[in-house]
Amino acid sequence: MNAEGEHAEDHQTQQEQASPEMVARIRESFDRQGLMAHLGARITQITPGRVNFALPSRPEVTQQHGYFHAGATSAVADSAGGYAAYTLFPENTEVLTVEYKINLLAPAVGAHIEAVGTALKAGRTLTVCQLEVFGVLDGRRKLVANGQQTLIRVNPSER
Amino acid sequence: MNAEGEHAEDHQTQQEQASPEMVARIRESFDRQGLMAHLGARITQITPGRVNFALPSRPEVTQQHGYFHAGATSAVADSAGGYAAYTLFPENTEVLTVEYKINLLAPAVGAHIEAVGTALKAGRTLTVCQLEVFGVLDGRRKLVANGQQTLIRVNPSER
Amino acid sequence: MNAEGEHAEDHQTQQEQASPEMVARIRESFDRQGLMAHLGARITQITPGRVNFALPSRPEVTQQHGYFHAGATSAVADSAGGYAAYTLFPENTEVLTVEYKINLLAPAVGAHIEAVGTALKAGRTLTVCQLEVFGVLDGRRKLVANGQQTLIRVNPSER
Amino acid sequence: MNAEGEHAEDHQTQQEQASPEMVARIRESFDRQGLMAHLGARITQITPGRVNFALPSRPEVTQQHGYFHAGATSAVADSAGGYAAYTLFPENTEVLTVEYKINLLAPAVGAHIEAVGTALKAGRTLTVCQLEVFGVLDGRRKLVANGQQTLIRVNPSER
Repeated sequence: MNAEGEHAEDHQTQQEQASPEMVARIRESFDRQGLMAHLGARITQITPGRVNFALPSRPEVTQQHGYFHAGATSAVADSAGGYAAYTLFPENTEVLTVEYKINLLAPAVGAHIEAVGTALKAGRTLTVCQLEVFGVLDGRRKLVANGQQTLIRVNPSER
Repeated sequence: MNAEGEHAEDHQTQQEQASPEMVARIRESFDRQGLMAHLGARITQITPGRVNFALPSRPEVTQQHGYFHAGATSAVADSAGGYAAYTLFPENTEVLTVEYKINLLAPAVGAHIEAVGTALKAGRTLTVCQLEVFGVLDGRRKLVANGQQTLIRVNPSER
Repeated sequence: MNAEGEHAEDHQTQQEQASPEMVARIRESFDRQGLMAHLGARITQITPGRVNFALPSRPEVTQQHGYFHAGATSAVADSAGGYAAYTLFPENTEVLTVEYKINLLAPAVGAHIEAVGTALKAGRTLTVCQLEVFGVLDGRRKLVANGQQTLIRVNPSER
Repeated sequence: MNAEGEHAEDHQTQQEQASPEMVARIRESFDRQGLMAHLGARITQITPGRVNFALPSRPEVTQQHGYFHAGATSAVADSAGGYAAYTLFPENTEVLTVEYKINLLAPAVGAHIEAVGTALKAGRTLTVCQLEVFGVLDGRRKLVANGQQTLIRVNPSER
């Protein structure tokens, strides 16, 4: 679950590997997102229908008590889900978040949080993803937020 | 919305004024939130049961197309709702977001976005707020996101 | 909300009137819905972008405490929102609920509940509605549930 | 997952069994809910933190196309989640739904639908459940709706 990825083809057993084209497409899109860099988020894993993000703890993304701010937690969860959907889309399409709902289950503490977006249902127009965020400290992961997201595929002619 | 604004100023007609104590309490809490400063958000209005935020456009909070990132839009909406609930809470309590749901209705463009949190129902334990985000350009406001949020009041003995 | 109500009656002051064709289209759809008749719900008002339902109290839709069951409250809210969106769709299209979120704000008591669906944003593909449910007793209305709903327009060629 | 239950103690391996007291408490509560009987729903499995419902197809719960109505799908999902939370509560407490969000992923068809409520996080005051609804036909299950729900525990002194 915490694989960094590019050189892991051989011992990847349970999940399909994303194609190099898909990885490139997502990394290129990610690099244009000012907010993710500003927060300090990075993509840690890309597989078809599932994308993981990590966001390290630092004062710029936390609250007064040292917890991650709900806004930061949500932002990386939303992005992880968006790219999870995007892995399933054909080339030359775009993804937009229609809506999401997130429950903040526990104070988000840890050295970093890990956001996992997983496609539950991929349709021609709409895709629904599950969003999970874990606080990670000393290798222990605790679920701190859980959500559900609806995304729309935008085709070039519709832009 | 049993407001506490006993010292409401004369020229405030449609909305009650927040008390100086309430304003101070919210500004002090806001100042401890690293994320809001990091994004560049500021509080623009505090009335009992309603709080407004503004977030100016800049590359650090936008996407590749110049729209505000959904994560930034959500973060200020969540914070506006949290403080709207907080205006109705007694002293020495805290507010936590239980969950929220937000629809991204239109590309969030503008010189800044304005997030408005409004308490719909304030209970002893739970408060429900409406969240609205407007894109503002040249004095014209357009609704770009709409949501609903549940918050919990945390009393000192429960911390 | 580009209304179609050319034949608005004189005594309708604040809201545009729905056209007879729109009213007929919605009533015909409603009559085919087994669940609404089974619950005892009826449509009480149809205007462009807004539809009201009433559901009278009786043991079949309530809980042990005499409150309306959350499932019944949600069912009429969802239907009111669905038809509110439908009023804005062209002929020969259909409406499907993509998702909704509802907060149950207070015990739903009253002689009947009134559900109001209101379109917030109508797009080519997706429409977002606000859902409100009021408990009504002796002419007094109290907000008992509030929600937000996403709907999709299905065109004949896509069925 | 499709166990009917009462005589299955011996070969129940993966899940804890609910105590007879818990089963009795939930069945007694269920029997007082007019709506569930009116819809034709029944509880099919009770384990700690997870409750399954079945709702057979019939015109009273379906739409014009023979699909289950979203309102019926939501009602059994909400109830399954409510009782899943309730299995984790101490005696002499009650459960109320605070809010839920549900995505209708596919037309809900089948001989019956099966709703599964699963507690994700159980707290002193609030519990969060995952909601899943499957269409079941000839032993094949297909996910037709997915949601997330927040519930509150009400203690006797607070009623």
